Amino acid sequence: MSVPIAILAGTGALPVALAEAQPDALCLAFDTPDARIADRAEPHRLEKLGAAFDRLRAAGVGDVVLAGSIKPRLDPAALDPLMQAEAPALLAALAQGDDAVLRAVIALIERQGFRVRGAHEVAGGLTLAAGAASVAEPDPVARNDIARARAILAALGPLDVGQAAVVAQGRCLGIETLQGTEALLSFVAATDPARRPQAPGVLVKAPKPGQDLRVDMPAIGPDTVHQARAAGLAGIAVTAGQTLVLDRARLDAALTETGLFLWADAP
Amino acid sequence: MSVPIAILAGTGALPVALAEAQPDALCLAFDTPDARIADRAEPHRLEKLGAAFDRLRAAGVGDVVLAGSIKPRLDPAALDPLMQAEAPALLAALAQGDDAVLRAVIALIERQGFRVRGAHEVAGGLTLAAGAASVAEPDPVARNDIARARAILAALGPLDVGQAAVVAQGRCLGIETLQGTEALLSFVAATDPARRPQAPGVLVKAPKPGQDLRVDMPAIGPDTVHQARAAGLAGIAVTAGQTLVLDRARLDAALTETGLFLWADAP
Repeated sequence: MSVPIAILAGTGALPVALAEAQPDALCLAFDTPDARIADRAEPHRLEKLGAAFDRLRAAGVGDVVLAGSIKPRLDPAALDPLMQAEAPALLAALAQGDDAVLRAVIALIERQGFRVRGAHEVAGGLTLAAGAASVAEPDPVARNDIARARAILAALGPLDVGQAAVVAQGRCLGIETLQGTEALLSFVAATDPARRPQAPGVLVKAPKPGQDLRVDMPAIGPDTVHQARAAGLAGIAVTAGQTLVLDRARLDAALTETGLFLWADAP
Repeated sequence: MSVPIAILAGTGALPVALAEAQPDALCLAFDTPDARIADRAEPHRLEKLGAAFDRLRAAGVGDVVLAGSIKPRLDPAALDPLMQAEAPALLAALAQGDDAVLRAVIALIERQGFRVRGAHEVAGGLTLAAGAASVAEPDPVARNDIARARAILAALGPLDVGQAAVVAQGRCLGIETLQGTEALLSFVAATDPARRPQAPGVLVKAPKPGQDLRVDMPAIGPDTVHQARAAGLAGIAVTAGQTLVLDRARLDAALTETGLFLWADAP
């Protein structure tokens, strides 16, 4: 029997997809878990990571997967001894952006003797192959817009900003910031129609250069497709093998329903 | 008597400020002019720039100032002979972003024998000196946020994106795109309070590297201050000599009322 793995779960669809792909995995919830995994998820707290690591060791876990979104809140009065020692460094990292926090968390987990694996490494079918994943495909204008959005994201990547951008006919209509992709697409949807370029535009989601794909891979799902449609876009482009695709059946249905393209560039 | 200048006016506060500073300037309006200059502004159309240039020549104009916002709409059926020749190049530039359009327009004006001057060159007091222009000043956290916003804008500048960015405690809350500063600040105002960093954040407006300050200088006014306040920010930073300050009396009143800082870094 192989060494068991553990899912350190936050909110969202990814912990659910992982739990389904790994029925034997231990599941520790650090935020209110999705109803579909609520019966499997053991409640834990960021303030008591020492207790969580003890639980993993007791279960013989070797590999852990971080999945879903966890609010970085720490109640100073609730810290266990491990976190009393580690919290200052984590809080300092918090001021430096998402990447710094994740690097610090990974380093902490690895110092405890566990290996951090990516969701795509422990569950197949969570990323796309290169090419069209939809019936629709990007036209030449959309391909130019994809290239321009990628140039914008590449310029911002070293600054730890921007997993997504929207470009229409060469004009940038939005760049993802702290608020996330849904907020970006709502912003684009609210653009004064008189100011919009003629071409509908594309959403490009791509990892930042050097981004740790084990813990911070860009993700899309059916909601992304509907939000992109509401923002008036023609489609979505991602990077093959480097973007998580959640809830594939509903995603495919959303693409069919909206007529949007979903395109994966080779990395 | 010196050679007269002309204001090629769009909408906004800048044509008004210029017209007040230059009471003898010829004023050609390419969009519905502000009521304060409506009696001075001669109506013209982008489609008939040939006629506008004839008017400037007849008046003996040497220097022209482009001021305010002009919607880049061209009715193909209304083009005069000059614009029939020039419109294709202008439309091609339109697909390449704001900078390309402005470069093409400046080149066209200069080929017609006029010199394009910046608003700040023909009217004093439209930009800020280095330092605080408010009673409030940025604290150390705000100074770090200003530096980080400037780094983001510097990275994007070569791509012709971003005259403004909002950063709070090192986290980017928004980057200006096609929709402009007001839309950016509305987006920031709508940020989920639970996701906002502890520090209030700053708006930084700065010209893009290589931006032609004669025709595309960043601008702020009293509305910017109130919108920044509504977005929960602590203040605004600009570049000394490189950001137009519109309606200074009301701007000062807005700073006093809101307690926000307005800071100008040396260029």
